[in-house]
Amino acid sequence: MPAPRQVNIAVLGAGGVGSCFLSQLSSLSAKLSQNPSTPTYLSLILLSRSKTMVYNDAFKPINISDWKSIMEKNSKPALPLPDLADFLAMSPEKVVLVDNTSSQDVADHYPMFLRKGISVVTANKKGFAGSYALWQDIFRAASNGTGQGGWIFHESSVGACLPTVSTLKDLVETGDEVRKIEGVFSGTMSFLFNNFMPAGGGGGSFSQEVKKAKDLGYTEPDPRDDLNGMDVARKLTILGRLVGLEIESPTSFPVQSLIPTALENVKDPNEFMAKLGGYDGEMEKLKKEAASEGKVLRYVGSVDVEKKQCRVGLEKFDSSHPISALKGSDNIFSFYTKRYGESPLVIQGAGAGGDVTAMGVTGDLIKVLRLLPQRQ
Amino acid sequence: MPAPRQVNIAVLGAGGVGSCFLSQLSSLSAKLSQNPSTPTYLSLILLSRSKTMVYNDAFKPINISDWKSIMEKNSKPALPLPDLADFLAMSPEKVVLVDNTSSQDVADHYPMFLRKGISVVTANKKGFAGSYALWQDIFRAASNGTGQGGWIFHESSVGACLPTVSTLKDLVETGDEVRKIEGVFSGTMSFLFNNFMPAGGGGGSFSQEVKKAKDLGYTEPDPRDDLNGMDVARKLTILGRLVGLEIESPTSFPVQSLIPTALENVKDPNEFMAKLGGYDGEMEKLKKEAASEGKVLRYVGSVDVEKKQCRVGLEKFDSSHPISALKGSDNIFSFYTKRYGESPLVIQGAGAGGDVTAMGVTGDLIKVLRLLPQRQ
Repeated sequence: MPAPRQVNIAVLGAGGVGSCFLSQLSSLSAKLSQNPSTPTYLSLILLSRSKTMVYNDAFKPINISDWKSIMEKNSKPALPLPDLADFLAMSPEKVVLVDNTSSQDVADHYPMFLRKGISVVTANKKGFAGSYALWQDIFRAASNGTGQGGWIFHESSVGACLPTVSTLKDLVETGDEVRKIEGVFSGTMSFLFNNFMPAGGGGGSFSQEVKKAKDLGYTEPDPRDDLNGMDVARKLTILGRLVGLEIESPTSFPVQSLIPTALENVKDPNEFMAKLGGYDGEMEKLKKEAASEGKVLRYVGSVDVEKKQCRVGLEKFDSSHPISALKGSDNIFSFYTKRYGESPLVIQGAGAGGDVTAMGVTGDLIKVLRLLPQRQ
Repeated sequence: MPAPRQVNIAVLGAGGVGSCFLSQLSSLSAKLSQNPSTPTYLSLILLSRSKTMVYNDAFKPINISDWKSIMEKNSKPALPLPDLADFLAMSPEKVVLVDNTSSQDVADHYPMFLRKGISVVTANKKGFAGSYALWQDIFRAASNGTGQGGWIFHESSVGACLPTVSTLKDLVETGDEVRKIEGVFSGTMSFLFNNFMPAGGGGGSFSQEVKKAKDLGYTEPDPRDDLNGMDVARKLTILGRLVGLEIESPTSFPVQSLIPTALENVKDPNEFMAKLGGYDGEMEKLKKEAASEGKVLRYVGSVDVEKKQCRVGLEKFDSSHPISALKGSDNIFSFYTKRYGESPLVIQGAGAGGDVTAMGVTGDLIKVLRLLPQRQ
């Protein structure tokens, strides 16, 4: 019987996704320690929040269920990232770094962590939707790229726990040809257009629906951070790169912003919301145009792989199209491939939320645990 | 830099799925041998078809691209399965057994192969939808169960390459509670009812639609093998067991057969087809009943996890329901869970066909290759 395994876990970020993850880690840790054949012991050995960190030089475990009060009592100033990488590399056990932040700075250091043998799991889009040079650097370092370092998984960087990243990777690795990717990749945009123009008719003015989405917490504090389309563009960048396109950045292809030009530079989000109604005419015109063709408007991302064209913006869909039938704030991803032919492989469901995002990260952690060599 | 890895592959079955798999294996093998950091060499060391086998005692590789003529020229009588297990266990390299048959006998021997350290990947439902004792035996032997033996993966046993099995496993392993599973799990039943009662109205008589499906190759040679519902019941058994239900067998819960009782014992399939029209009245009545409620009829499987109830048969759905909107012969799987709430995680697309079924098997092989220890 193999000896029990010990794996050390370092968690960056303890906000919405981070706190859900810590709760899932606590259950997972209890479950894995009970595995009758090869018990695995997970130790939380470092936890960071904003500019503070809890850790100790002996890699002694932090009681996960008590993390909040421990952070309050025992925090030290956060280590700079290169020092953090050096510190984790000294661990006598394998280390998995769980990045629950949305920090570009952390993402920029993934290659450094990976090269030191530290595996990374994350929902953070920044490492995969930033510059193409960073994407290359990450997968040149990782064992599931062409490198020799740690493993890296990022299922939740697109559509939370919906199996989008892993499915696309499987299609490519098994030799299928992905021809087109299309879908609604933003819960906010989904909710907004499902209400602005439901397939059955109806819906309020565009500014009213933006206000409704904001009041219900479906938008960022400044709704322009959703309406500019960059969140969708980042996800599309990741999906496109997964199928082999060398997309330079999320701003290197056309992204239609829904922010009226005149309101782009308004400083106060409240002022923006107050003035948005004055620009409802343009969206109303598009809505009428679509309705006259028996179609509905949806905000979609698409990749035409053969033509190497990415696009994010408004499109019209027949009311019988699955994209038109989307409900609530659900995401939908359609993968058109050579082997699937005319009828795409479709994945649909909630693409945001603390628990389902953390679940993707926890799933990735389980994958890494399986891949780390067992002690003999 | 780690030394190149060598993994031996034994393939059982070279029919529809098997021949597609061999073609995918040939491409995969070429690709993996080119991996700049850790080249992996896959050798096909055994291939069986019906009662014959090609192999040699030195585990010398068979040229994959030439498998057909090699089988014709060099076949020997197939080894009995226990002898096959002993033979493969003598391989100096790790072995993956690829079961592309639909044989119960092969499935019954999975625990034996696994205990000898041989990993198994397969689209064969029989090991997972047979007796519960076999299911337990398999996962008590496998390293991804509670055992120490080989790894076993069976993505394509439900919905071909659609990521159903892996997604359910991820949900359970990360601590989500799956509450209900519902969907159309049979391409034949999907095609039949999408045509018999399209959401927009229309459709021929039931016997006409069965004939159409048969003529287009969507049914088994004897359509009763689809109409009895057992294919759906087997898939439901697998899904239910994945979420923890101890389902005794696919006949231990209600399965509605669409074969008129009077025609169950008709021997000749052609005679069955000729007589089926005489029983169209019952299905016509159900169709009218559904239509009067503004609904459509679909043949679905469902698992109510809390009540531990499985059911396979006809159900009525509102025409706005995603199950009603299914097209062609597509499958749909809806997973209702605690974390996903009201809106399920949905996976949809082709759930049958040689290429997409083999693709699931190839994907599983890649997973096993990652998990097999690297030479140092």
